[in-house]
Parts: sequence; structure tokens; C-alpha cells
Amino acid sequence: MAKPRAVEAETDIAELRRQYAYLSERFGAVPRDGVFEPVSLGPVKGEWVRTKTSSPSRLILYFHGGGYISGSPETHRALIAKLAHASEATAFSLQYRLAPEFAFPAAVRDGLDAYRQLIARGMPASAIVLAGSGSGGGLAFSVMLAIRNAKLPMPAGCLAMSPWADLTLSGWSVLQNASKDTALSWELLFVSARHYLKKAPPADSYASPVFANFKDFPPIMVHAGSLEMLRDDASRLGDRAAEAGVPVSVEIYDGMQHCFQAHSAVPEAKVSLQRLGQFVRQRTAPRIETAPAAGR
Amino acid sequence: MAKPRAVEAETDIAELRRQYAYLSERFGAVPRDGVFEPVSLGPVKGEWVRTKTSSPSRLILYFHGGGYISGSPETHRALIAKLAHASEATAFSLQYRLAPEFAFPAAVRDGLDAYRQLIARGMPASAIVLAGSGSGGGLAFSVMLAIRNAKLPMPAGCLAMSPWADLTLSGWSVLQNASKDTALSWELLFVSARHYLKKAPPADSYASPVFANFKDFPPIMVHAGSLEMLRDDASRLGDRAAEAGVPVSVEIYDGMQHCFQAHSAVPEAKVSLQRLGQFVRQRTAPRIETAPAAGR
Repeated sequence: MAKPRAVEAETDIAELRRQYAYLSERFGAVPRDGVFEPVSLGPVKGEWVRTKTSSPSRLILYFHGGGYISGSPETHRALIAKLAHASEATAFSLQYRLAPEFAFPAAVRDGLDAYRQLIARGMPASAIVLAGSGSGGGLAFSVMLAIRNAKLPMPAGCLAMSPWADLTLSGWSVLQNASKDTALSWELLFVSARHYLKKAPPADSYASPVFANFKDFPPIMVHAGSLEMLRDDASRLGDRAAEAGVPVSVEIYDGMQHCFQAHSAVPEAKVSLQRLGQFVRQRTAPRIETAPAAGR
Repeated sequence: MAKPRAVEAETDIAELRRQYAYLSERFGAVPRDGVFEPVSLGPVKGEWVRTKTSSPSRLILYFHGGGYISGSPETHRALIAKLAHASEATAFSLQYRLAPEFAFPAAVRDGLDAYRQLIARGMPASAIVLAGSGSGGGLAFSVMLAIRNAKLPMPAGCLAMSPWADLTLSGWSVLQNASKDTALSWELLFVSARHYLKKAPPADSYASPVFANFKDFPPIMVHAGSLEMLRDDASRLGDRAAEAGVPVSVEIYDGMQHCFQAHSAVPEAKVSLQRLGQFVRQRTAPRIETAPAAGR
């Protein structure tokens, strides 16, 4: 058990960020073929992530984790590069604004702006998949909601690893797995939610997409570990998709922890990343129009 | 420290009810002048509570506590009789339906039905004050919301002792007072909320009136203890009232616990009940029209 130190209401933001940094340190080494290029796209910042398999015509818009108060494209380089590699895609890893300096919905606005920038630069929506891990996984769904409500063309898909998609912390797994989850604690999630939401209601769909309507969403893939407190966030995203008639695959990996995909030593990490990569490749495959049969 | 036993996700409803029963056993003896008369008002059940001071023309519609899953008019007799005595009022203590057998919003519907029954029996709205303790304090506000939205005549006021008015458990005091609160635990509140809400969103205004708009509400008085996890539920009800321009008094009693009014030994209990009683008396005082001065 490697639980981070106790979090209290008075724990300052620097200490909270140290705790999340400790989590992302467990992400392991960046793959050798990863190339990272910091960039500004109009008003938003981030970095291009490419590996030797990356196609330029297949794009992942990635949202890192860190409870909305910490993390960056840098802290998540290893995980993003592995996903980009398995997906044969280029990734744009967004450096969205963090709380408490920038509270909800700043992160969602940055995500929507990033998507607009990618579209404005000529990337077809059908070549873009939204993706994220932890709070970034929840954010991917919030941004999907914002894209739909702004009536922009929809991306090709949305995937999430261990998403935090309910800032009310109301999943049964929050209690059931409280002592089994080695990464997160109720206190850390509670304090992170307070800093991000400030006075906003915690069940706002843009903060907690498990309460949103997924009408017109593209296909969805969500992976989580059976031991994590946020396990039910994954399953409830699946429920919303099913209710809206959206193709969905939710996979709960037995005995796995929060963001297990980042831990190279676990065989399940490879399986999960392969399946997520396959999802991206299939969703963004060029649609070959079958030529009408000649004659007849 | 007399914390109840540990609650887990699997804790059955009988054990949860034993834990709440243990809390209400601390409520002390029923005052000697209390008279309790079980009754049905059309579709709703409850009991009339009268003391030697009770006026028949001043009515408290009371909602007992117990986390929406336990408690009854009987368990709260001592507290209700003390409030009725201090208020010089008759109380109708509602036996609303409990979860998990009857989930949200059954309790709110029962509260609204009870109010309709009282009005239909000729009690003027201006003679009725809604009141409650714990989850019943939150319910009083939810029922007020339902009354307003049904466009019924509004009651004369609303009072609450240690209300639980945020089922998302998002007040800072939930964490700050977690180890100071001798009555409640996060686990007990979490499990109670799940049983009551089932799949309803926890920030629904009818479940969590701290997220409601209090436009057109009558004057409000809320008392809570500084050591309780639900302290901020009280202060945020006050915030909503102030935002809506509703006269409000929120009093946080230093060093006090959840529903301290029920504990006769504490001097603050008497002070709080006196002030709540005064609120009821003033709000329901007959409006004496000043007779136009004769002659001149």
C-alpha cells in the first residue's frame, strides 16, 4: 500500500500538487520513440506528441489527469506516448488551465478552444478522438458535451482511462474501494473538487458528465480498474451512453488500480492500451466508399 | 467520543437504522406536558403534538431526521415537544415514507401532501411554519421549494436544526469536522444518500436545497453546531436566502454538535430552542390591523 500522505481541508495547494506528482512519477519512463513539441495553437497551449507509428492524419486530443489542480502534458508524457504509439496517431496534449487559480469551467473552455483550433487548422472532425486519464478522462466527456452543445462537428470517438466523471463522489465504489485504492483517497478527491468547483454545483454536467445526456455522442471506450474508488464513474459513463443509444465499451480490469495503463510492468496495461489503440485506429480509418458495382 | 460503529457499503438497512436509533436515544426524555395523537390526514400519516403552551392557531409542520432511511415521529418526540412548547404552537409531525423502500422524491411528495391537507382543513398558510432537524431540516426546505413551485400559498416561515441540505456532501465542514463530529460519519451520510437517491442526481434541488433558488421564500431561521460535519449546510442555506432577498438568521453555536437542541444538559440547547420558538411566535402572530384613528 503506497497511499499518499493524509490530506486535510487546510492542506495547501503546493502539497496537493506534490501528492499528484508522486502519482504521476509512477508512470514510468517515456518510450524511446516519443517526440514532444510544445506549441501554441491560437489561445491554447500544449504539445504535439509523436511516435514512430504516428500518422499525421489521425489525431488524439488528450487531457491529462491531476484532479484539475495539478499535472501537465509533461507529467503524462509516458502514458500519452504509449497511447499514441498503440493508436498510430499524433496526439495534441492540452495544457489546460488549472484550479484553484482558474476554476471550473476554465478547463472545459480550454478544451473546446483546442478543438476549434484543430478544426480551424484543417483537421477533419472525423480524424479526431478525444481522450484522457483520471480527471482528464472526465474532462474529455465534458468537452464532448460542450462540442455537441456548440453544434460543432462531432469527433470520431471518445476514450478514457480511469475517468473521474462525478465530482459529487457518489459512486458506490468510492466507499467500497476506499481501502483498496492505492492511488486516491476520498480526502484528496474532495479537496480537489472544492478547488476546481469553488461555488459551482458539483453535479453540473460540465463538471460531472455522469449526469449528462449523451445524445449524438460518437462511440465511446472507457477502461478502469476493479479496485479503484472511481470504478463506478466508468460504469456510469457507459450507462449514459447506452441510454442515448451510443456505441460503448466499458471494461473493468480485474485487480487493477487507477490508471494502471501507465505501469509498464502490468500485463493488463499492454492489453488495455492495445484495445484503446485499436479503438482509435478503427474510429479514424479512412472511410472507403464502396464503388458501385459496374454494369447491371 | 461516541461515534457509531463503522458503516460499510454492505451494511444492511437494519444496522443503519440501529445506528440512527442510537443517535435519537440521546434525545432525552419527552417533556411531561407533551401529548401525542397519531392521526391520518387523508393520504398522509403523522401525529399531533401538543404541550400546555400550544395554541391551536399556530402550527409547526415538522419533519423528523434520520438520514431519509430511519427515524419517525416517535423517535423525535422529545425534540418536537420542546420546540412546540417554546413556540406555543401545535405541531404536526409527519410520518413520511422512508428509503430504501420509498426513494427520493417520496419524502418530498409526502411533505407537500401534508401541507395541502393542512390548508384544505382550513389552517391558514400564514399560521404554518415548516420545521425539521437533520435530514428533516433539509426536507423542510425541499418541501418549501415544492410548495412554491406548486404555486400554493407560502407558509409563514421555515426553521431547521442542523439541516442536512446537501446530499453531495460538498461542504468544507464535511472534511474539516470529520473527526470532531461525534454523531455523524461520512460513511453513514454517504450510504444514507445512496439509499434515498438511488439513481437520482445528488444535486437535484429537491434533494439538496443548498443548490435551489429561494425566490419568494418566507423568512428563515437555521441553527447548527460549529463542530458538525453539516455546519456548512446551514451556512449555505443562509447564502441562498440572502441571494434571494429572503430575511434569514443563521446561527452557528460554538462547540456544539449535530442536533444539540435535543440534549437537555447543554445550556445552548435552551437558548437555541427559545430563539426558534420566538421565531415561530413572531412569524405567526396575528397581524393586528391598526385601527384608523377616530375623528380628527
